[in-house]
Amino acid sequence: MKREGELMHQFMEKLYPICRSITGDGVRKTLEIIQGMIPLKIQEVPSGTKVFDWEIPKEWNIRDAYILDEEGRKIVDFKKSNLHVVSYSAPVDKVVTLDELQNHLYSIEEQPDAIPYITSYYEERWGFCITHHQRMQLKEGKYRVYIDSELKDGSLTYGELIIPGESEEEVFLSTYVCHPSMANNELSGPVLTTYLAKWILSNSRKYTYRIIFIPETIGSITYLSRNMDTMKTNIIAGFNISCVGDERAYSYLSSRSGNTLADKVALNILTFKKLDFKSYSFLERGSDERQYCSPGIDLPVASIMRSKFGEYPEYHTSLDNMDLVTPTGLQGSFDIYTECIELIERNETYKINCFGEPQLGKRGLYPTLSTKESGRIVRNMMNFLAYADGKNDLVDISNTINVPVKELYSIIDNLYKNGLIVTVDRNAM
Amino acid sequence: MKREGELMHQFMEKLYPICRSITGDGVRKTLEIIQGMIPLKIQEVPSGTKVFDWEIPKEWNIRDAYILDEEGRKIVDFKKSNLHVVSYSAPVDKVVTLDELQNHLYSIEEQPDAIPYITSYYEERWGFCITHHQRMQLKEGKYRVYIDSELKDGSLTYGELIIPGESEEEVFLSTYVCHPSMANNELSGPVLTTYLAKWILSNSRKYTYRIIFIPETIGSITYLSRNMDTMKTNIIAGFNISCVGDERAYSYLSSRSGNTLADKVALNILTFKKLDFKSYSFLERGSDERQYCSPGIDLPVASIMRSKFGEYPEYHTSLDNMDLVTPTGLQGSFDIYTECIELIERNETYKINCFGEPQLGKRGLYPTLSTKESGRIVRNMMNFLAYADGKNDLVDISNTINVPVKELYSIIDNLYKNGLIVTVDRNAM
Amino acid sequence: MKREGELMHQFMEKLYPICRSITGDGVRKTLEIIQGMIPLKIQEVPSGTKVFDWEIPKEWNIRDAYILDEEGRKIVDFKKSNLHVVSYSAPVDKVVTLDELQNHLYSIEEQPDAIPYITSYYEERWGFCITHHQRMQLKEGKYRVYIDSELKDGSLTYGELIIPGESEEEVFLSTYVCHPSMANNELSGPVLTTYLAKWILSNSRKYTYRIIFIPETIGSITYLSRNMDTMKTNIIAGFNISCVGDERAYSYLSSRSGNTLADKVALNILTFKKLDFKSYSFLERGSDERQYCSPGIDLPVASIMRSKFGEYPEYHTSLDNMDLVTPTGLQGSFDIYTECIELIERNETYKINCFGEPQLGKRGLYPTLSTKESGRIVRNMMNFLAYADGKNDLVDISNTINVPVKELYSIIDNLYKNGLIVTVDRNAM
Repeated sequence: MKREGELMHQFMEKLYPICRSITGDGVRKTLEIIQGMIPLKIQEVPSGTKVFDWEIPKEWNIRDAYILDEEGRKIVDFKKSNLHVVSYSAPVDKVVTLDELQNHLYSIEEQPDAIPYITSYYEERWGFCITHHQRMQLKEGKYRVYIDSELKDGSLTYGELIIPGESEEEVFLSTYVCHPSMANNELSGPVLTTYLAKWILSNSRKYTYRIIFIPETIGSITYLSRNMDTMKTNIIAGFNISCVGDERAYSYLSSRSGNTLADKVALNILTFKKLDFKSYSFLERGSDERQYCSPGIDLPVASIMRSKFGEYPEYHTSLDNMDLVTPTGLQGSFDIYTECIELIERNETYKINCFGEPQLGKRGLYPTLSTKESGRIVRNMMNFLAYADGKNDLVDISNTINVPVKELYSIIDNLYKNGLIVTVDRNAM
Repeated sequence: MKREGELMHQFMEKLYPICRSITGDGVRKTLEIIQGMIPLKIQEVPSGTKVFDWEIPKEWNIRDAYILDEEGRKIVDFKKSNLHVVSYSAPVDKVVTLDELQNHLYSIEEQPDAIPYITSYYEERWGFCITHHQRMQLKEGKYRVYIDSELKDGSLTYGELIIPGESEEEVFLSTYVCHPSMANNELSGPVLTTYLAKWILSNSRKYTYRIIFIPETIGSITYLSRNMDTMKTNIIAGFNISCVGDERAYSYLSSRSGNTLADKVALNILTFKKLDFKSYSFLERGSDERQYCSPGIDLPVASIMRSKFGEYPEYHTSLDNMDLVTPTGLQGSFDIYTECIELIERNETYKINCFGEPQLGKRGLYPTLSTKESGRIVRNMMNFLAYADGKNDLVDISNTINVPVKELYSIIDNLYKNGLIVTVDRNAM
Repeated sequence: MKREGELMHQFMEKLYPICRSITGDGVRKTLEIIQGMIPLKIQEVPSGTKVFDWEIPKEWNIRDAYILDEEGRKIVDFKKSNLHVVSYSAPVDKVVTLDELQNHLYSIEEQPDAIPYITSYYEERWGFCITHHQRMQLKEGKYRVYIDSELKDGSLTYGELIIPGESEEEVFLSTYVCHPSMANNELSGPVLTTYLAKWILSNSRKYTYRIIFIPETIGSITYLSRNMDTMKTNIIAGFNISCVGDERAYSYLSSRSGNTLADKVALNILTFKKLDFKSYSFLERGSDERQYCSPGIDLPVASIMRSKFGEYPEYHTSLDNMDLVTPTGLQGSFDIYTECIELIERNETYKINCFGEPQLGKRGLYPTLSTKESGRIVRNMMNFLAYADGKNDLVDISNTINVPVKELYSIIDNLYKNGLIVTVDRNAM
């Protein structure tokens, strides 16, 4: 296994304990740590700002929270798991009966050892999340409930990194930083995105990269409301990066139209890697692709995931922890995404530069030693040329001639060097 | 079961005994009785009138017909079944041998108890139709054959009802009234169409309805020859209504192109009702869709039937009688057709009125009580909005998000009321 | 069986012994014999002429070749099989050890009784091809190798026959004459093409026919480099005729796009003949379609074969001999190709000449005697008319209504005679 998987997993350990929500200091601290890795620009948008059909909510911060039983024992403690408190809980400090308490408790009968992840962003209430096992053991009596939180005018925080390329055309990566201590959904996304940004920065590139770390939904709506026109003009392909850390599956979630460059690239790479990936329609969406692909915005955004949100048992519970996400799982996602980006960078519409088949022999493109391997290369070269008709792009040709793009890159370089192909401007067609 | 099925069946009993053909008093009487239910305008087109490639034939009427055996017994009697005489039989009154008689007899060996339905519209001859069972028992001897019929210059009669709507765009319903006493094919058609017309008249409507009761083939050709331009300009969807009375099947016969609004609506309604319907291609056509969908006319006309003409054993025999057609069978057709019409009335191309997903909560569109049912409604609403892109019409969205239109109507009303969607003029696209 | 199969097989016997290559007297002699059958125009293109990315090579001729063992016995003799010498072998006359000889021998271990067919057009070397069986028996010792061949500036020879028609639009037939004594691949092609040319000459025709007999690859490139513009303007359909002589299979190889008129016609004829043919994609190409369908040339050229090149065990060996190719095999190809040409000649875009269905009866198009056969004809006629909408051509209609074109020809003649259909200019649409 390559090194990035381990590094990403270590980086994740560092971010894991922070209590994030859609606003507040948890997000800020997360973005600052990421800023230590890549030159992120951190933006603040004030509460009350109108963003499309929405409004930036009040900022939420929490210092402490617990439940004490009659004997004063801390039976639930926010400091042990930040999932114990409903995200955006209003402050509370009172003594309640078990009956009253039950109205503010959340647990999952079917997963008695899991603390569920519950939010209440747009309705003011308070609540605690506990394992069902613990809930069953609660006795009649008085309980002191204490949440030291604050809802106040503040701001929504997000991070943005624009990496300029030769072209103004953009590749877009979006991930979200609003989940408390959960691993696959969602710390794997920001961690992988950080390492992809590092990798992009370390390579020469044709396209500009727009990479954002935002709170889900309200963050993408906010970001779109400020950048939509540029994004619609420039973005040629993008990915919403989420749930990329476990080892159990590969998943592909299509854009709304299903036929954007992002979809084409994702399907080509996943298919030729012979990964047994699951394909999900846009009806099974659930993250920021909901905004990016909405009518009138229609960005070319797809998702490649490991186990998809909502499709694995630990999803949105305390069981989605650091054991679930592995260096191997993260590495797999890193490899797929870097191959996708490489393909986007290399994807062109090619056109053969002569009539009929060229004479490969006189150019030394015909192998002198005829082996099975060299025969395959010549066949791939001739098939590439047969479809290099100024209409098919590299992905189309790879699909048609059934050869992975990895095997075509050196063939293309050779043909290019020999003046046998040219690229055609797809916008001018 | 709803009431219409019973009412239709009773109405059918009244029309059943009348001897109809493509012209003559049987058609007139039938249309007059229907006129008692809906404000039908009855039209007469003179014999000899040129209609496209055809000419209106002479008018045929019959008063009586029988066969007497040597003992003077009336062994075949038109008064007992009007199927006994070949439709458009010339008058005859003579004594013939059994051998001569056989040349004018029609029966079905495989259905020995059925009187077949035979016509001879465009060639002058006479004939009797009897059960094969009876034919086998005929003895050598003399028979008196008597048909008191008349072929004379007269006219072709049809009924027309134009129900104006807000729009000049039209929905077209066509049925035929040229068959003698048979039930599924074809008294079910005019009876259902009468009740659909009553239902349309009793509701407010967007579209104009053009509803016609005609003799098959020559009637549709005649009607088209007089109204084709208006019809081609105005009709957005239509149905040829035939064979809609038995309980054994649902059938869909596509238009020639297969992708008109009539086809889309019929398939959507039939599919989501989870009826196990049979789908027939235009190659299996057989009624007036032959004219409506012919090249150069190309009206958007499909058919929804119960057991399709030619596909059930009693077809075109005396066995296609009032026992075969049931209130339940008719009601099923009524329900499907009214749902189709409702869908045509409500079908629009919708467009979401904001960027990104709207905030349902602040508009009270998010249910306060979260149940399985309310979750489904919210999911359907969000999916509806995701595809309300100004390109998909309601049928497209229903198909894409896999939700019956019935469940979308109230969602659309809610979204509309809240200003979250607008309709787009499909002609202006 | 028809007569052409026998005649073609006899003609093939005459051409079989000639030693052909991509240039030289073998090609000339072959073309002269064909010229005895059809008025072929023979063209010479000098060595060194630039043709697209290629150059006409030196001309190669061979008089004799053999290998003598130490006892002076002629163990390999070109006069017994012209496959014994690598095509384009340089002259040689020397004594070599067995070890040195082995470097110049070609045989097939898996087919020990076959002499392989080997060429070395663009690299100067010499070599002998023998059975693996013989090779295994060679003893240590000295061998005299003798090849009396000549590589000199000369020319590339090809034959061309333009058969003018009423229209400048062309049907194109191409076959190749560069293989020494092998039967299915490739003497069957030029032999069948000769008989197709005779058949075309003997019939009246609408289209002009361009028929060429060329060496493979360099020949098609040469021909294209001289005629491309006319060919691109005029050719509406073409076939590369190769491997058309055995009885074991029918094969269809698509054009690059797969949807040209040649493809449509080939698939229609093969499908309705209910031959169990194998369909090959353009990725499995191997003959001059490589040039005809290359990007920027894009001629509508497909292939119908019996056992396809590369797909039968005797391919490119001495086992591909006169026993493999049979009169029946050749006749099958002749029948298919003549049916394809007949269909191309008759293919039109038809349009019904009236609104609605015509009245067949008054024109005598309705059979007076109603039989199963006549019912089928009427049904086919009505179905033909239903799709004669000025958009579908004959192939489309045949496919849609599922009736072989052979059964539609007389129907079309009848409808045409009665003024019920017209043809529509597909270019004017």
